[in-house]
Amino acid sequence: MLKFELLHKDKNSKARAGKITTDHGVIETPIFMPVGTQGTVKAVAQRTLEEDIKAQIILSNTYHLYLRPGTEILEEAGGLHNFINWDKPILTDSGGFQIYSLTDLRKMKHDGVEFRSHLNGDKHFFTPEKVIGIQRLIGSDIMMVLDECTPFPCEYEYAKTSQELTSRWAILNKVAFEKSKPLYGHDQNLFGIIQGSVYKVLREKSAVDLAALDFDGYAIGGLAVGEPAETMYDIVNFTTDFMPDNKPRYLMGVGRPENILENIERGIDMFDCVMPTRNARNAYLFTSEGVVTIKNAVFKNDFTPVDPNCDCYTCKNFTKAYLRHLYNAREILALELGTIHNLTFYLNLVKEARKNIIEDSYLEWKNNLLMKISKNIKTTQEA
Amino acid sequence: MLKFELLHKDKNSKARAGKITTDHGVIETPIFMPVGTQGTVKAVAQRTLEEDIKAQIILSNTYHLYLRPGTEILEEAGGLHNFINWDKPILTDSGGFQIYSLTDLRKMKHDGVEFRSHLNGDKHFFTPEKVIGIQRLIGSDIMMVLDECTPFPCEYEYAKTSQELTSRWAILNKVAFEKSKPLYGHDQNLFGIIQGSVYKVLREKSAVDLAALDFDGYAIGGLAVGEPAETMYDIVNFTTDFMPDNKPRYLMGVGRPENILENIERGIDMFDCVMPTRNARNAYLFTSEGVVTIKNAVFKNDFTPVDPNCDCYTCKNFTKAYLRHLYNAREILALELGTIHNLTFYLNLVKEARKNIIEDSYLEWKNNLLMKISKNIKTTQEA
Repeated sequence: MLKFELLHKDKNSKARAGKITTDHGVIETPIFMPVGTQGTVKAVAQRTLEEDIKAQIILSNTYHLYLRPGTEILEEAGGLHNFINWDKPILTDSGGFQIYSLTDLRKMKHDGVEFRSHLNGDKHFFTPEKVIGIQRLIGSDIMMVLDECTPFPCEYEYAKTSQELTSRWAILNKVAFEKSKPLYGHDQNLFGIIQGSVYKVLREKSAVDLAALDFDGYAIGGLAVGEPAETMYDIVNFTTDFMPDNKPRYLMGVGRPENILENIERGIDMFDCVMPTRNARNAYLFTSEGVVTIKNAVFKNDFTPVDPNCDCYTCKNFTKAYLRHLYNAREILALELGTIHNLTFYLNLVKEARKNIIEDSYLEWKNNLLMKISKNIKTTQEA
Repeated sequence: MLKFELLHKDKNSKARAGKITTDHGVIETPIFMPVGTQGTVKAVAQRTLEEDIKAQIILSNTYHLYLRPGTEILEEAGGLHNFINWDKPILTDSGGFQIYSLTDLRKMKHDGVEFRSHLNGDKHFFTPEKVIGIQRLIGSDIMMVLDECTPFPCEYEYAKTSQELTSRWAILNKVAFEKSKPLYGHDQNLFGIIQGSVYKVLREKSAVDLAALDFDGYAIGGLAVGEPAETMYDIVNFTTDFMPDNKPRYLMGVGRPENILENIERGIDMFDCVMPTRNARNAYLFTSEGVVTIKNAVFKNDFTPVDPNCDCYTCKNFTKAYLRHLYNAREILALELGTIHNLTFYLNLVKEARKNIIEDSYLEWKNNLLMKISKNIKTTQEA
């Protein structure tokens, strides 16, 4: 079982600094997990993730890995760590969110969800038991329960029924987890997912239901699905009060730098989002001075780095003018250099956050930083 | 001026081992030059080229750089080396071959070539003087003359007229070179290009014409444009006899591993080709045991490296099964890992060739190697 040490609580907010120890190593929280949907964080090699970006854990997707390469190959490879040659921690999403995103291709049933593959239309059926079994074959350090992710907006009645279903499934997930064993000699852990849309009464119910099952950690799901940022912050702030203090807290699918900082303040320890990687591929680069839309003509002869305060390979070696050229010429190197920078920015962000939490200066640091990066927030949101 | 030292001639063939010294460092010949058309070798970062692939020189393209980012930006950056942050040697193609490839978009004139940009249709006119000027602004260590590259097949009369034009232009290139100066504090050099299609009398005339101009090196152009391999070998073997012994010899646009080995045997020192990089992006990987078409289903659970005899990052860390998954899932990492492997294979190939030349074992080594890789040559050619 993973060990979570709560090292320090900020004196002026709910922000926490902690340390998660897994069989694949330590994760210092708060942490951002780069997304490696199909067994690779898009556009960067594993050594780059480890040595440059200094990722401590990556996220991969049960749904995608199940369809391709498939569990047979992963099992034969000795699990996902071996298959992709990554020996640090891996968290796998249960597939709930991906199936939720399939809309027309899925049908919720009381005991699971039927869906068609986005690759070839083949019909599949995921149950809590099945999803635990797949994650055993993947061998992720942190497994996620199968849940139902509600959309935004969502009627109260639907959200209530859905939250109850997620709570029932949580039990089935937990039972399947207890009845099964890790396959590759390292321990696996299971996180529960709190649902309930934007309804506090449901969030409280969900959090309490799940806490009773004693998961290894707890996630908040069903946010970052289109609701206003203020609503997200409000629900997170409310929900973390009902989450065990002695377990890691993970806010799924969040988010922009400012979202991450606001939610750290509200007691979240772990984040994942495609934003740094996807935006890098779309030529939007996060910096300590706001977003740089690198294809902009103003950068054509700007021979300074993307972020003067960044120590990543991209910023130490290349100029905005060169990056702009690479993006305009649709060169693959643009995607790698952009991704290295954006992920380094995210990992440095949570590292700095952690340092400031420990020094009880989190709020001041956060407010200063947000002021600097907010000058381009409009651009960011348009991205 | 670059220094060329002919260190050893193979006792049993015309193969040569040499050393070129430029202001950006040493090139050990025979050498393969990875192609970086637009100021980046596609899919690999500069540190990867240097540290993993151990490229000693890369090739870039005057035509492409002239259109994008343009010479103004390159000049303001302090030249291409600075712009792309690569401090080893760079050779630039003159644009002759790219313009030749434009077919419908270009018109040959007696004093230059008129063409339309493949990017936006704008009309441009390249003369020998202009192309030298552009390469001064690029700052390449080795500049190439503007020539006319004939197609295959090519009527004798056309080939003759074209060879004469290339020889006249060679003088204009040389004069423009002598009259101009390097801009960035390092020396630049100019290579002539021998044309004459498949006609030996024209190749001899061309080689003799150019030798009289005392270029810093000599290239054979107009091959690898569709003629049979045996014809290429025959023309190369014939032509190298008319090329100065004390200058580097460069066969442009060649080629497959077997083409490189055959042409080293016939006295060539330098090669460039998009094959290792382009084939990597198309999932064809060169190995010491022949070509691996990595998407093939037989590799789905093959947990051995692409090439057991290769020490590249890809082969030391990843399996065929993982690479196949990355290619099938259209992941960007596939392109990087494939390119690292293919370019390392090419650079190791010429390194081994050099070693065997020095030890007078070139022919035996070459024949053994060709036997091993030829089992898949058919597949290679279909690629």
